[in-house]
Amino acid sequence: MFFGLTRYSKGSNAERELIKVLFGKGFSVVRAAGSGKTSLPSPDIVALSSTKKLAFECKAWDSEYLSIPVEQIEEQLSWALRAGAEFFVAWKMPRSGFFFLAPTDFVRTEKSFAITKKTACEKGVRLEVLLGEQERLKV
Amino acid sequence: MFFGLTRYSKGSNAERELIKVLFGKGFSVVRAAGSGKTSLPSPDIVALSSTKKLAFECKAWDSEYLSIPVEQIEEQLSWALRAGAEFFVAWKMPRSGFFFLAPTDFVRTEKSFAITKKTACEKGVRLEVLLGEQERLKV
Repeated sequence: MFFGLTRYSKGSNAERELIKVLFGKGFSVVRAAGSGKTSLPSPDIVALSSTKKLAFECKAWDSEYLSIPVEQIEEQLSWALRAGAEFFVAWKMPRSGFFFLAPTDFVRTEKSFAITKKTACEKGVRLEVLLGEQERLKV
Repeated sequence: MFFGLTRYSKGSNAERELIKVLFGKGFSVVRAAGSGKTSLPSPDIVALSSTKKLAFECKAWDSEYLSIPVEQIEEQLSWALRAGAEFFVAWKMPRSGFFFLAPTDFVRTEKSFAITKKTACEKGVRLEVLLGEQERLKV
């Protein structure tokens, strides 16, 4: 129970941080009302500019891996498809900031989309890269 | 207090109804988290399709007029401008459904954007018109 609250609170702070960063990059941002209040699932954060539509699921796990239920990712991908938006999982890692992950970066099992921290650091992109401001470094 | 709750609850129901209607028209919809939780103001509802970006302030006043503080409208217009979205006030009237109003339909006073029910019925458009599915009837 306490663990759950802690995780929720961290996630909430990460959302606020992402909103600020996106706002600073010139986006209009909307934070979705908590799930359960509407029957329609939506991403945690939607950011719009005159040329871009971005949708984010925000996670702030301080762990060696991240795992998200299959139905949650599929609902959000479907949301993004109808919206004509790009969808990313924004993983906030302590001391490392946000890594933006596409669902294809994850390993899909029967029940979840999973990724290790190591893979997320390798495959995830930084916001500047995501926004096309910076090219990804060649490894 | 009780009046306030009633109005809130009606507004909340109106939001849910608008979300359903927009979803039925093929939009992906996000309902904004309650104000105060983030420092960034946003519209109540944002609806996206591959070609459209719509932002709504949702009102369910059962009264002869509607009045919205100037700063609230200006914040939302500014949000919509950065987003490249169209902004409407969606006034849900009992037994008449939604009328969609542009800020220019309102009379602007020092403190508020105001409109009478009569004017709203004349100037407001129905969703089909807003979405370009139906031409507005010539009066």
